[in-house]
This record gives sequence, structure tokens and C-alpha cells, in this order.
Amino acid sequence: MNHSGKLDPSLAAYLKERVRWVDDTLERLLPPDLRPPRRLYEAMRYSLTAPGKRIRPVLLLAACEAVGGDARVALPAAAALEMVHAYSLVHDDLPAMDDDDMRRGRPSNHTVYGEAMAILAGDGLLTTAFEVLGSAQVETTVDAATRLAVLFDLAHAAGPGGMVGGQAADIEARGKGEVELPELEFIHTHKTGALIAAGLRMGARLGGGSEAQIEALTRYGRHIGLAFQIADDILDQAGESGEGEGPDGNQATYPALLGLATSRDHADALVERALMELEPFGTEAAPLRSLARYIVDRTH
Amino acid sequence: MNHSGKLDPSLAAYLKERVRWVDDTLERLLPPDLRPPRRLYEAMRYSLTAPGKRIRPVLLLAACEAVGGDARVALPAAAALEMVHAYSLVHDDLPAMDDDDMRRGRPSNHTVYGEAMAILAGDGLLTTAFEVLGSAQVETTVDAATRLAVLFDLAHAAGPGGMVGGQAADIEARGKGEVELPELEFIHTHKTGALIAAGLRMGARLGGGSEAQIEALTRYGRHIGLAFQIADDILDQAGESGEGEGPDGNQATYPALLGLATSRDHADALVERALMELEPFGTEAAPLRSLARYIVDRTH
Repeated sequence: MNHSGKLDPSLAAYLKERVRWVDDTLERLLPPDLRPPRRLYEAMRYSLTAPGKRIRPVLLLAACEAVGGDARVALPAAAALEMVHAYSLVHDDLPAMDDDDMRRGRPSNHTVYGEAMAILAGDGLLTTAFEVLGSAQVETTVDAATRLAVLFDLAHAAGPGGMVGGQAADIEARGKGEVELPELEFIHTHKTGALIAAGLRMGARLGGGSEAQIEALTRYGRHIGLAFQIADDILDQAGESGEGEGPDGNQATYPALLGLATSRDHADALVERALMELEPFGTEAAPLRSLARYIVDRTH
Repeated sequence: MNHSGKLDPSLAAYLKERVRWVDDTLERLLPPDLRPPRRLYEAMRYSLTAPGKRIRPVLLLAACEAVGGDARVALPAAAALEMVHAYSLVHDDLPAMDDDDMRRGRPSNHTVYGEAMAILAGDGLLTTAFEVLGSAQVETTVDAATRLAVLFDLAHAAGPGGMVGGQAADIEARGKGEVELPELEFIHTHKTGALIAAGLRMGARLGGGSEAQIEALTRYGRHIGLAFQIADDILDQAGESGEGEGPDGNQATYPALLGLATSRDHADALVERALMELEPFGTEAAPLRSLARYIVDRTH
């Protein structure tokens, strides 16, 4: 494995182009305008168009391409996925939740727009995601049954059986203090992993992948989703000089439970398992291979 | 018009049966169980299964029947609509929003489960609604294109162009004091009316209605949605001995702006317009006719 921590130049160009496609789609689907209530749309755009790596939508597009599909077909779904991610950040930052004043180097949504409008902006982003996926206005060559399946993938991954469930488990865990590994894994696989895996699944479906391909890419997504979260925990710990706390003052992190070295090994092993899932795929899966390696290379 | 304020006995029997169908469907779709995180499911069920009139899902079923459809086909959609309504109540009651400790005679969700879990329970109910509509597990004879259109109806009505937009406008209006009639109408048509109209539209679609029938029932829904809100304002004012305040300490009500008599006339006129939309329909629309009258009869 290449542990240079540098981004492969061809991957960098690939990412840049797809991030631009995603950003353009977000602008098109949620344009700045004067519709009332103006402040709601402003608050939604504030968090949705904040600069970000767009890792989830890019993985969705890469999955579509890995099965031989045209990424442009999957752009509305990629944008919807990013809307759901943005909503989750807005609600997570609320005073009653993680109480974060800052997000990506800018004041968090409720700090700027107030708590009530931030709750509504989150609700609005979540609902708009499903509006986009269900809309007849969104030009698409995809059949209705596939679109419905893609929509279900997203709803299931975002709901109580996925992201919302992981966040609820996290809140319950904090309330009781000590967290053990199975519980931490439940939190991470649900809070972060489910949405990432759903993106892979959605992309593979929209690209016309076979059931076997869809399942393989979903497993790839689960592995790198968890690896991504462990890597984030490691980077947070490194950034906070080994205080053993996550970004939310949370003790429940892999480095805190397993130590740095074992956490790194665990993340590496997950990436290897993700790469194994890609073995039946051809060169179309090259970006997914590079992305998997990139996730853990950041921690070395 | 019959202004007795009493419920027609055949309508009462009709409502009772359909409310039971809706309640059974909600139980089936969100059963009490021990899945983790248990407290999240408890919180979701607490608000979803609270006793209520189920007016929105019943209207949806009645619209399905008005176009000659079988109401049972529309039960998952009716349940999804009630989930979206329940989520909106949970989020509306939050301290940052209306700050209501009580709802339907019971402590509000956040009073029982805490603010963080209430936010997540609302998010979970909203997402589950779309999960239900998108699910392949939900037995249905409806084609995918119709299901996608129904899902879009709900998402659009719940989102920034509908309910969330109305709630945001309401919050902005409270911040600035004086509210005028066009603004109040915007708030009501979006905050309450959009979801009711969407239910009619969804039911008409699922029952196999023609485009003309779907549009007529949507207009019926808009009229009675606004009449329903005006009636609620009137009842609230009556209940609070003419203090001129809505249930949320809100000055923006029809009786406060127009007076009681004019508000009643306005509601009556809206019901007449709703009934006119039903003229092309046969006896299958009898429950919709009775329901329209029942809404304003409460205020006389």
C-alpha cells in the first residue's frame, strides 16, 4: 500500500471535476433567490453550499461509473445525498445536541440564523432531498422502479435504522459514561457508515449495476465508511495532542478504546477488505480504489 | 347548510372505521420493539400513536374512495402522511420553536424524552415516512411511477415550498410584530394547508383518479385546509375568552385580524368553494362532503 499521504494526481483531477459537477447541481437545485421565506432558503444554502470535500456524493458518482454508468445520470441523487449530510450537520451542531458554534471554520448554522431557523433549515434540507429524488422535473433517463429503490436506500440509511439511530445511540451512550467497542461500532456504522454505504448503493443502482455489483459496492461502502470514521477519530486525537477526546468532547473514539496503533491497523484492515470487494471490477473502479487508500493514508 | 355542530351518524361510523385502519397501519409500520436505540423508537411512537383525529390520513383515504379506489391501497401513504404531521408537531413544540410543554393533553415529546431525542424523533418520523413510501416491503398494487408521484406530492408539501416554509414565515412574522392578511394567508396555506391538500392529491392518485379529478381534489384540499385553520383560530379564541391570541401566544390569527363574524363567513365561503369542487363526483364523495361541512360546523 502507498502510505505517502499524498493524493494521486489522476485521482486529484477526477475528484476536482466531480466536486464541480456536484456543486453545480446543488446550485441548480437550490438557487439563491428571493422566494419567501427568504431567510429559510438562505439558511439552507449557508450549510449546503459551504465548502466541503463532497466525499459522499463523489463516492456515489464513482460507484455509478464503476458499474459502467454515466455519472451525470446520478447527479440529482448525489446532490440529494449531500443535502441529507448537510441537514445532519446542522441538527448535530444544535445546542441540544453537540452544541458546536463552529463548523468547517465558519459559525455553525444556528449561530448565524438562530436555533429555530436552523431546525427548520435542517428539516428543509432533508425534505428537499426526497423532493429532488421524487421530482418529475429532474430530467432523468432512469426508470421509476429504480428511482424508487434509490430513494428507499437513502431514506433507510438516513432514518432510525441508520444515521438517526446512530446519533440517538451516541446521545444515549454519552449519558451513561463508559462505552464499549460493540456499542462504538454500532454508533459509527449507523451514524457515518450507513449514509456512505447508501451512496455507493444508489450510484451502483443508477449506473445499471447487477444485484451482485450493488451488494459488493454496498459492502465496500460499509468498510470504508467505518475506516473513514476511525481515520477521523485518529486525526482528531492527533490534532488535540492525544487528549483522547473526539471533536464533541466525546470519549467514545477508537483511539481512546484501542490505542492509536491498533486503531490504524483496524482502519488498514477495513480498507483491504473494501479493496477485495472491488476485485471483480475493471479499470472503471480505479477511482474507488484510490479513494479507499486515500482515506487511511491521511492517518499515516 | 347544516349548522348543528353534530357529526352525521353515518360519517361518524365511516370515520371510526378509517381511523382504526390508520392506527392499525401505524402500529404495523412502527411496532413497539426492542431494536436499539430503543429510546428513539419509544420517542417516535410516543408522538405518532398519541390519540388524535387522524384528519389528514382520513381525508387521504376519502379522496382515494372518491375517485372509486380501494382505500386499503392508500393505507401506507396515509400512515406516511400522519408521520410527517407527527414530526411537525414534535419539532414545533421544541423550546426554540413554540416552546409548548403540553400537546393533546399530554407532556410534549421533548418534555418526556429531552430536547436532543425529540429533535431526532422528529427527524426519524420524517425520514420513516419516505422510507415507507419507497419501500418494496410495503405490499402494494400501485405502479412505481404513481408511487414516485405520491412521494413527490408529500415531499413538496412538507418542504420549504410548503409546511417548513410556512413555519419559517410564521417565525419571521413573530419577530417583526404586526402581521397583515396576505402574510397570514401565506403562513396558513403553507403551514397547514399544503399538507392537507397533498393528502387529497395522494389519495386521488392512488385511487386511480384522472388528472382533472386529482386537481379538483387538490383544490378542495386547499380550501378546507385554510377553512380548518381559520376554524381552529376561532375555537382557540373562543376557548381563551376572546383574548385574541392563538395557541402559541401568536397574535397572527384570522379572528384577531378580521373579527369573529368575518372569520366565520370566510371559513363558510371556503367550504362552499370546496363543495363546488366535488360537484362532478358521485356518491363516493359523500364522506368528503360531510367532512368539509363538519370542519366549519364546529365553529357555529
